[in-house]
Amino acid sequence: MNRYRQSADFLRLVLLAGVLLASAAIRAQDALPSWNDGPAKAEILKFVDEVTAEGTSSFVAPSERIAVFDNDGTLWAEQPMYFQLAFALDRVRAMAKDHPEWKGKQPFDAAIKGDMKALAASGEKGIAALVAASHAGMSTDDFARTVTDWFATARHPKTRQPYSSMVYQPMLELLGYLRSKGFKTFIVSGGGVEFMRAFAEKTYGIPPEQVVGSSGVLKWEMRGNAPVLVKQPKIEFIDDGPGKPVGIQRFIGRRPVFAFGNSDGDQQMLEWTAAAGGGPRFMGLVHHTDAKREWAYDRKSSIGKLDKALDEALARKWTVVDMSTDWNRVFPFDP
Amino acid sequence: MNRYRQSADFLRLVLLAGVLLASAAIRAQDALPSWNDGPAKAEILKFVDEVTAEGTSSFVAPSERIAVFDNDGTLWAEQPMYFQLAFALDRVRAMAKDHPEWKGKQPFDAAIKGDMKALAASGEKGIAALVAASHAGMSTDDFARTVTDWFATARHPKTRQPYSSMVYQPMLELLGYLRSKGFKTFIVSGGGVEFMRAFAEKTYGIPPEQVVGSSGVLKWEMRGNAPVLVKQPKIEFIDDGPGKPVGIQRFIGRRPVFAFGNSDGDQQMLEWTAAAGGGPRFMGLVHHTDAKREWAYDRKSSIGKLDKALDEALARKWTVVDMSTDWNRVFPFDP
Repeated sequence: MNRYRQSADFLRLVLLAGVLLASAAIRAQDALPSWNDGPAKAEILKFVDEVTAEGTSSFVAPSERIAVFDNDGTLWAEQPMYFQLAFALDRVRAMAKDHPEWKGKQPFDAAIKGDMKALAASGEKGIAALVAASHAGMSTDDFARTVTDWFATARHPKTRQPYSSMVYQPMLELLGYLRSKGFKTFIVSGGGVEFMRAFAEKTYGIPPEQVVGSSGVLKWEMRGNAPVLVKQPKIEFIDDGPGKPVGIQRFIGRRPVFAFGNSDGDQQMLEWTAAAGGGPRFMGLVHHTDAKREWAYDRKSSIGKLDKALDEALARKWTVVDMSTDWNRVFPFDP
Repeated sequence: MNRYRQSADFLRLVLLAGVLLASAAIRAQDALPSWNDGPAKAEILKFVDEVTAEGTSSFVAPSERIAVFDNDGTLWAEQPMYFQLAFALDRVRAMAKDHPEWKGKQPFDAAIKGDMKALAASGEKGIAALVAASHAGMSTDDFARTVTDWFATARHPKTRQPYSSMVYQPMLELLGYLRSKGFKTFIVSGGGVEFMRAFAEKTYGIPPEQVVGSSGVLKWEMRGNAPVLVKQPKIEFIDDGPGKPVGIQRFIGRRPVFAFGNSDGDQQMLEWTAAAGGGPRFMGLVHHTDAKREWAYDRKSSIGKLDKALDEALARKWTVVDMSTDWNRVFPFDP
């Protein structure tokens, strides 16, 4: 073989490698176009490749491909207040005249006065209390209608967009990508389960039966000849912090192999996922680092505080998404 | 047209009708071979045909094809005692020496003494109490292993079969038939959710996340470096009677269009299904009328009492399965 033939072969090899690399890049770009090439995207793709590789020790059967996502701050924004809090405030204000007993009592007083600092400090427990109390006596059907109506008209104070448009485009792509790879995607959130179900299917493609959340007590009643489930002013379950693994066990009954959160309220969910047997597991956090396109907050935020979970993620080499560098687009309505 | 031609045409018409009827019968027989041709089978087939007929007013989108089944007495047998009670008794007896405080206290005393009458009277609430108490301190993983081990060795006192073989062959066929028609099948049972999940996927093809049941409180704990969920001796939720619509709303978040039960504990689940909007709905009861192949009991039974729900089913023309005439086979191991 002469030197000319040898160098031609070498050139062909280089070209072939280039084509393969380019097609791999295109494939990845197709699945997650709003994710910049970087460690977060690479870790997602690597994990999915591993668990779907049949005949390998890392293979996970489709029935076990359970992926769980926090909602507030992970799938959609949570600033300047949890969106469900904005909904609850609108409800509480509309109902205040019929509830003199709310006066001077927190978190109701803060809600009526619009004291956002006091409200933010009440956290997801405060929201749950507001929702439970302000909707006591309402049937589940009426509640679902009220939420749907609110989404149709309410607008975010900063972007003036409908709240259901304030979802993260890269996470929508990730949900679709995982489902295309045989994963069953679940929401596991501190938000109210019936609030989230009113938009989760349309917005995320996640059906009601795959939404796990906080809940109030329901009571079966006959109204006329028709049975209704009536919301009671009592919290039943808070799906936050250590409540998240409990909610996963109660509602899903399997350990997730993939979990994404953004705050200390997700720490136990990530730990529960990490501890699930051998084989690859994916634990991810969205780090809000983008004051320009979204918000920048972490260790000292009263909403979506990310402190201990960030330390643990860094120590255990979990995936931490830097919103400002990992995402080339944040919201679907971004240019 | 001469008379010969006319009668030939008529003959062809009769033959064609015969072929169509025969092929319909073969089709039905293929889907539900253990169901005799009769009103129950015809009502099931008619309902499924209606909700899957695209372009008609009775059509139900696949995502809304939610079918819920009670477990004890509906998918598997429940005599001479709920199978979970047999499991709990075995556990309580094994643990009794370490729990002197159970002596003289019901339902524990009855469990230890084998007083079946007192136990049966304690109902599904009694079972839940036995399970909750006898497993307090156990992790969910350990509990799942214990249940799996029990199924592998325990035998039914009458048939000497494994309990997981005491399922109704016609209902296995019905579950498969519905799934083949785009339905999502759920268990909604008074039984313990973690007990049922240990066998439901293998036995019924129903995954853990589609099992709704009674539950005890769980607590997140670190044992060494590993997180565990520990069963607490406190009942959290009883998924029976009016609790069934509550469980459906909480876990599934949609109204079922198809519901099957066998006792008064299923009455509200059937009413909730019947009240779900317009369009066809299927409400069914298994009536235990077969003392020879299974058991015969209804209005006066302490287990699986069927009294008020039977009256309502007859009055509202819901489907009532007469086990002795509607099923040509009861258990998979029957000849």
